[in-house]
Amino acid sequence: MTTKPLPYAALHQIWTEIPAAERMQRFRSLPLAEAQAFFRELSTWHQYEIVSSLPEGEQTVWVRLLDPDDAADLVQEAPEEDKQRLLNLLDDNTRSEVQGLLKYAEDVAGGLMSPRFARLRPDLTVSEALIYLRRQALETTETVYALYVLDSEQHLLGVTSLRRLFTAPPQELITNVMRTNVVAVTEDVDQEQLSRLFAESDLIAIPVVDTENRMKGIVTIDDIVDVVEEEATEDIQKLGGSAVLGAPYLELSMGTMIKKRAGWLVILFLSELLTTNAMGYFQDEIARAAVLALFVPLVISSGGNAGSQASTIVIRAMALGEVQLRDWWRVFQREIVIGAGLGAILGVLGLARIILWQQFLPSYGQFYWLLGTTIGVSLVGIVLWGTLAGSLLPFVLRRLGLDPASASTPFVATVVDVTGLVIYFTVAKLVLRGTLL
Amino acid sequence: MTTKPLPYAALHQIWTEIPAAERMQRFRSLPLAEAQAFFRELSTWHQYEIVSSLPEGEQTVWVRLLDPDDAADLVQEAPEEDKQRLLNLLDDNTRSEVQGLLKYAEDVAGGLMSPRFARLRPDLTVSEALIYLRRQALETTETVYALYVLDSEQHLLGVTSLRRLFTAPPQELITNVMRTNVVAVTEDVDQEQLSRLFAESDLIAIPVVDTENRMKGIVTIDDIVDVVEEEATEDIQKLGGSAVLGAPYLELSMGTMIKKRAGWLVILFLSELLTTNAMGYFQDEIARAAVLALFVPLVISSGGNAGSQASTIVIRAMALGEVQLRDWWRVFQREIVIGAGLGAILGVLGLARIILWQQFLPSYGQFYWLLGTTIGVSLVGIVLWGTLAGSLLPFVLRRLGLDPASASTPFVATVVDVTGLVIYFTVAKLVLRGTLL
Repeated sequence: MTTKPLPYAALHQIWTEIPAAERMQRFRSLPLAEAQAFFRELSTWHQYEIVSSLPEGEQTVWVRLLDPDDAADLVQEAPEEDKQRLLNLLDDNTRSEVQGLLKYAEDVAGGLMSPRFARLRPDLTVSEALIYLRRQALETTETVYALYVLDSEQHLLGVTSLRRLFTAPPQELITNVMRTNVVAVTEDVDQEQLSRLFAESDLIAIPVVDTENRMKGIVTIDDIVDVVEEEATEDIQKLGGSAVLGAPYLELSMGTMIKKRAGWLVILFLSELLTTNAMGYFQDEIARAAVLALFVPLVISSGGNAGSQASTIVIRAMALGEVQLRDWWRVFQREIVIGAGLGAILGVLGLARIILWQQFLPSYGQFYWLLGTTIGVSLVGIVLWGTLAGSLLPFVLRRLGLDPASASTPFVATVVDVTGLVIYFTVAKLVLRGTLL
Repeated sequence: MTTKPLPYAALHQIWTEIPAAERMQRFRSLPLAEAQAFFRELSTWHQYEIVSSLPEGEQTVWVRLLDPDDAADLVQEAPEEDKQRLLNLLDDNTRSEVQGLLKYAEDVAGGLMSPRFARLRPDLTVSEALIYLRRQALETTETVYALYVLDSEQHLLGVTSLRRLFTAPPQELITNVMRTNVVAVTEDVDQEQLSRLFAESDLIAIPVVDTENRMKGIVTIDDIVDVVEEEATEDIQKLGGSAVLGAPYLELSMGTMIKKRAGWLVILFLSELLTTNAMGYFQDEIARAAVLALFVPLVISSGGNAGSQASTIVIRAMALGEVQLRDWWRVFQREIVIGAGLGAILGVLGLARIILWQQFLPSYGQFYWLLGTTIGVSLVGIVLWGTLAGSLLPFVLRRLGLDPASASTPFVATVVDVTGLVIYFTVAKLVLRGTLL
C-alpha cells in the first residue's frame, strides 16, 4: 500500500505487531502532539492497555483527551473494579455526560451517541448563527457540519448544514433554511439498524432523540465504520463456531483463546455423540453390509456442507436486512427448490461414482446398482434436509429472541450429521431389503 | 425501531419486500423530489433495475442525477452490452469523468473516488477562499468540509477544513492554515486497506493521488460504510462455502442461486469422495471391529469443527489487518498449543463417554479401556491437526495470491475429514493390535 501516512499512523499499522512489553516505550517516544493524535485513534482495547500501564498521576491527562462517547467506551472496556476509578479521573462536566451514556447498552444508539453537537435556535438569523457557530466551533463539538435546530425545551425542530448557511442570505431566519422532516432515531435503536440507516441515507450524522422528540445527542458516521466492522467480526466468529473473541487475535493469551473456543467445541462434541447412538442403532445393517459404512462420511458431510452454506447465506441476508422474520415462508419455498436441485446434482454424482468405479475396479458385488441408488437417493434427501434445516434454523433462533448467527456452520453440520445418518440407513433398508440387507 | 424517517426512507426499508413487478408503480407514485432522493440512495443493483425498466427517453434524467462515482458503479453493474448505451446518456463532462473512473477496478481507491472535491490555491487569503467556496459549494462537490490545497500542476500541498477557515483571521494565507502531512492513498490501494485507514484515522474524506502526488479525487466515508458491509458479506458467503451472491438474497432467481451454490458443493463432494477410499483402505479393520465404524462421524466431525473454527478466526484477523502474512510462524506456535489444549479436552470427554457408558450399558466388550484410549488419542491428534490445518490454510492461500476466505469452513472440514480417518484408523491399529484387531 502506498500511502503517505503521518508518522504516528505508520506506528498505528504495526501496533499489534509490537510485543506488548515494548509498547509503552514506543508510545513514550512519540512527540506529545503525535502521541495524543495516536492515542485518540487507537481502538478502545489498546487505549485501555496504555492508560492502565501509566502511573496513576499521568492517567488523568490521557483519559481527559477523549470525547465523552469514547471515554464511555473506555470505562466499559475496563474490568468492573476499575470502572469507578476511571470515572473519577474525568472532569465533573464530562463525568456526568459519560455517566449518562453508560446508562445505555454499548450497542444501541444511546451508547454510541455523543452529547456534543452544534445547536441553533430557530429565530436566529443566518449571520447571527454563523457568528455563534464560529464560537462553538472553537470549543469541542463532534461536528459543525450538521446543525440541529432546537426549541428551548430541546425538542428537535429541524436540521441544517454549514454548507446551507454558507450560501443563504445573511438576514434569513434559521427556521426558513432548515429541513423539518429529519431522519432521527430513539436511544434504544440497535447499532445494526443504525448502520443500515447510515448506509441508506448518505448522512454524516444522525440525531438521537427521546420518546418526546427531545434531542439527546448525535451518532457520527466515523463511529459507524467501526460498528459495521465489529458487527461483521462478531457474526463471522460466531458462524465459525467460536465465542466472540472481543480482542485482536494476537492480543489474547492462549489460555483465554482456549476458553473462548472450547465452549462451542464441547457442545458440538456432545451433540455429535448422538451420531454414535445413531450408528449403534444401525449396527446390524453395518455388520451385514460393511460397504455401507464406507459412504457414511461422504453422505453426512454433503448434508452438512449444504446446511452450512444455506445458514450462512440466510444469516448474512438477515444481518443486512434483506430478509425479515416474516419472510420465513418465502425462504422456505425457495430453499425447498434450491435444496432439491443441489441434492439432485450431488445424487447423480454419487450414483455415477459407484457405477463408474464398478466398471474399472469391481468392488461392490452384483448389487452395485442398488447400492448406487441408495447413495444417490440418500444424497437427494440429506442435501434437501440440510438446506432446509440450515436456512430455517436462523429464523427459529431469531423468533426465540436469540442471535441467528449462533446457527454456526459447525452447529448446522452437527445437526445434519445425526439426522443424515437416520436418512441414509433408512433409505438403505428400503432399497437393499432382500439383497444386501 | 422508532425512527422518524422521510416517507421515501420508509419505502427504502421495504423495497426488497415489494414484488419486482410492483416496484415501478411504487417508484412513480413518489413526488419528484422524493423520488430523486430515493433513487440516489438506492443500492447500485436496484438503481439499475429502475433505470432499465424506464422508457429510453426517461433514463437520461435519472442517470444524470448520479455523482460520477455512483454513475460509474451503475455502468459497472450493467451487463456488457448495455454499458456503452448508459455512458451515452451522460453529459460530455460527466461521461469523461466516468470513463476515467471505469479504468480502475471497482474495489480500489481509483474506482471508489469522486473527482469532485473542493480545491484551493495556497496563496489565497482565508476570506478570498471563503468567497470562492461559497460559489463552489453551490455547484456540486462531494464535500465542502475537507478542502484540498493544490498548486497549478494539481500537486497536493496540504489539506484544511471549512471549520478551520471559519475560525481563522480573514487575512491569513491558506498556506498558513493548512496541514501538510496529509494521509493520502494512491489509486491502486485496495478498498479493504482503505476502509481500515478510515477506521483508524477518523477522517471524513481521504485524497487519492497518483505516483507523482497529483490529486485525482477523494474517497468519502459514506462510500466506505457500503464497502465495509460488502467486503464482510463477500467473506461470509465464501466462508460458508458458496460463491459470492452479488445481489440481495430474495432478488436472485432460484436457477442463479443453484448455480452460485452448486460449484463449491460439487468440489467438496468430489474431495469428500476420498473419504470413501480412506474408509475402503481400512475395510478389514472395520470388518474385524465393526464398533470402530460407530465412532467415525464423531471423530472426524470434531476435527472438522476445530478446523472450521480456527480458519474462520484467522481469516477474520487477516481481513482486519490484525494478522499479516509474516505472522504465520507466530500463529503456528499459538495454534499448536491451543489445538493441543482443545484436543485434550475433547479427548478426555471421548474417553469418559466410553468408560461411563460401559458401566451402565456394557456394549464394548472386555477391551473397552483400549477402545476408549483409541478414541481419546485420536481426538487429540485430529483436533490438533484440524486446528493447525484450519489456521495455516489461509496463509497458504494468501501466499499463492488467492483469497484466504476461500478456506471456507466446509472446505477445511472436508480436508480434515479425509486426513482424520487416516489418523483414527492408524491410532486404532496401534492401540488395538492383538486385541480387537
